[in-house]
Amino acid sequence: MDYKVQPRILQGFSELLPAEQLAYNKMYDKIREIYESFGFLPIDTPVLEYADVLLAKAGGETEKQIYRFEKGDSDIAMRFDLTVPLARYVAMHQNDLAFPFKRYHMAKVYRGERPQKGRYREFCQCDIDVIGADSLDLVYDAEMPAIIYNIFKELDIGKFTIRINNRKVLGGFFSWLGISDKTTDVMRVIDKLEKIGREKTAQELEKIGLDDAIVEKIMSFIEISGGCDEIIASLRAIGCDDEKFITGVCELESVVSYIRDFGVPDEYFTLDLTIARGLDYYTGTVYETKIDNAPEFGSVCSGGRYDDLTNYYTDQKLPGIGISIGLTRLFAQLREYGMISSEKKTTADVLIIPMDRSALSYSISAAKALRAENIPTDVYYLDKGFKPKMKYANRVGVPFIAIVGESEMAENKITLKNMTDGTQETVTFEEAANMIKQAK
Amino acid sequence: MDYKVQPRILQGFSELLPAEQLAYNKMYDKIREIYESFGFLPIDTPVLEYADVLLAKAGGETEKQIYRFEKGDSDIAMRFDLTVPLARYVAMHQNDLAFPFKRYHMAKVYRGERPQKGRYREFCQCDIDVIGADSLDLVYDAEMPAIIYNIFKELDIGKFTIRINNRKVLGGFFSWLGISDKTTDVMRVIDKLEKIGREKTAQELEKIGLDDAIVEKIMSFIEISGGCDEIIASLRAIGCDDEKFITGVCELESVVSYIRDFGVPDEYFTLDLTIARGLDYYTGTVYETKIDNAPEFGSVCSGGRYDDLTNYYTDQKLPGIGISIGLTRLFAQLREYGMISSEKKTTADVLIIPMDRSALSYSISAAKALRAENIPTDVYYLDKGFKPKMKYANRVGVPFIAIVGESEMAENKITLKNMTDGTQETVTFEEAANMIKQAK
Repeated sequence: MDYKVQPRILQGFSELLPAEQLAYNKMYDKIREIYESFGFLPIDTPVLEYADVLLAKAGGETEKQIYRFEKGDSDIAMRFDLTVPLARYVAMHQNDLAFPFKRYHMAKVYRGERPQKGRYREFCQCDIDVIGADSLDLVYDAEMPAIIYNIFKELDIGKFTIRINNRKVLGGFFSWLGISDKTTDVMRVIDKLEKIGREKTAQELEKIGLDDAIVEKIMSFIEISGGCDEIIASLRAIGCDDEKFITGVCELESVVSYIRDFGVPDEYFTLDLTIARGLDYYTGTVYETKIDNAPEFGSVCSGGRYDDLTNYYTDQKLPGIGISIGLTRLFAQLREYGMISSEKKTTADVLIIPMDRSALSYSISAAKALRAENIPTDVYYLDKGFKPKMKYANRVGVPFIAIVGESEMAENKITLKNMTDGTQETVTFEEAANMIKQAK
Repeated sequence: MDYKVQPRILQGFSELLPAEQLAYNKMYDKIREIYESFGFLPIDTPVLEYADVLLAKAGGETEKQIYRFEKGDSDIAMRFDLTVPLARYVAMHQNDLAFPFKRYHMAKVYRGERPQKGRYREFCQCDIDVIGADSLDLVYDAEMPAIIYNIFKELDIGKFTIRINNRKVLGGFFSWLGISDKTTDVMRVIDKLEKIGREKTAQELEKIGLDDAIVEKIMSFIEISGGCDEIIASLRAIGCDDEKFITGVCELESVVSYIRDFGVPDEYFTLDLTIARGLDYYTGTVYETKIDNAPEFGSVCSGGRYDDLTNYYTDQKLPGIGISIGLTRLFAQLREYGMISSEKKTTADVLIIPMDRSALSYSISAAKALRAENIPTDVYYLDKGFKPKMKYANRVGVPFIAIVGESEMAENKITLKNMTDGTQETVTFEEAANMIKQAK
């Protein structure tokens, strides 16, 4: 056939070269391992769902972004987050689940947004949530930062800070100021403080229709700073007697105390009264996480507590708390900043190179012996000269090669070469396995 | 809000409960581990692609099944296999890849088929392929069965048999009989031998328009049986002098010899001259794998060699060989037959239960200590009575619980209870970690 189709992918979609994919998978696996170490259970839901189910709670913007189409009689949509599928899953399988239900879900979601830097139409979210049957203890609000701490320490991307706030503190404070009807607007402005600065924030608050005295009170409230204990003391000193506010401050205090029980060092978390999180369904503790040396990444892990996960599907009230890591975006950012420690370019630790055809069977046996020692092993089977064989080894970046020729076979050994430092030695399979393990 | 949406999923789609998902993930991880142990590199491609790219080589049936829709100006399709995306990926990234390129891809594909038992609209394929730059040694044809052997041994689902054939043997034989123009039709009939039996196969061959003598020759050819060496001898005894046939028999002989080098026991593979594999692009060795005690599962791992992966995208000839495991279907079959050895229902090995609030901080520390010993650990944080706590532990099926009360805290210990045999003992964190590890 002569007609060729141009191989290309859709705008806003991305794929990685194998060595990058390996580094990505390593991050994915580490996150998964830590989620599992805290007892979270895996689920996976269909990428395609009934549009009315997925859009039960969606607003205008989400609806515009969604991939939606008809097939047969069905009005189908692609999932755009993992929270709605979780709500649907819990509502459907309630009787088969034990509560508190701790689940993780790390999978791709789809949004037909206008492609731009940092925006993806297909991206992986790594979510955990704990869902309570009726109530859910405040300790879970502290477990989330403990998990965030463990993950980002393990990912080894430098110092980070988990910022914590409580929506009740904000809500109660506004109620006390008598501006509850403007809570949503005010929160939307506050959320932008860091981006637009003090002055513009004050201006925007005035635009909402707040008088100067109120604006000043809000500004000095959101500028409360210091260590966690100082901030809690400052909040108490405001003199706000709103019940919700008082509950919120108590919650913050307990959460801080539990976080310390979890062993998270104080320098890794802080209270930040400006954090509101855009979504309206958060009702208590909320989180953001920033990398200290790369605040421009934005929040690399966010979430919070909500009162009612499944209200669009059932009457039962199921409170929950969760966090999410946008892995596709984070990985791309780390890659751009050269912050990925991807020491391994191949899955194989060693590539066995038979000098010629007569060494093939022996090489296959050697590979089998190394695999039995848990050393991932590749063999170069093509009948080529030594030069192209070495060129391939260098190209793929395998950390060790093992050469097999007549003398190696006679001695029942292989010549193991460390591709990093260039040293080589003729050793038994077992010795080779130990040398490779030691270099890891 | 009062209006509720009925939580439900689309027909032909499925999802698992957490304990099942855990067993599924375990299978997924094992397959991945073995693919990696042979040096295969991971890739992942977008689920959505340009329809003209994905459908470049598709025929009528595939086109009907595909999920395809427009968004903005784009004609978009969901991937329906992992081979077409591989071809597109290799054609696009050729200059950044080292050949032979060994890649694995384990991901979901989508087909809008009429839902029926054993057919899924969303299912996971676990594919490996080796792509050569110009040629690809026959040893790779033997590495595939070696990998299949390692995987299914590891999955522990009983005795299985890898069936091997070579399309050149079939093609050359038909050419010798002077029925090359009917090769595709004849192969389609042969492929059904096992399903429809000898008599019907002969009848269907006659329907194609073959005379009795030819039909008889075909029937006795496809009924050649015995061990691999016997079958090869029988093939040679036919007296067929077609060059392709002779090449094919030599290839089979070499592949059998290499498979033995890989250490695959003879009882796990066989030559089966009836295997043609439906797809027209296979040109050499082809495989099917059947579980001996569950032949009704059909082939649980199939594949073969092809001459030209990317001919719809580039002029360059890239030969390859690959196999695929349909994990969603296999898992469902194993589950139906009670063949899943899912010993673990939770990610956590132990659930720590604080007797009351005063034991909370201590329990959090105990959990931290156990996690540091690589023991996934959950803590029950709800402030409830002992009964609901135990009920939860039994419900989730955690293998160990650790009770923390006043006496445990005083001794700096926990009371570890083995939920399988009911034994319990008050021990240090370290002792507990060792006891849990030993029980694994």
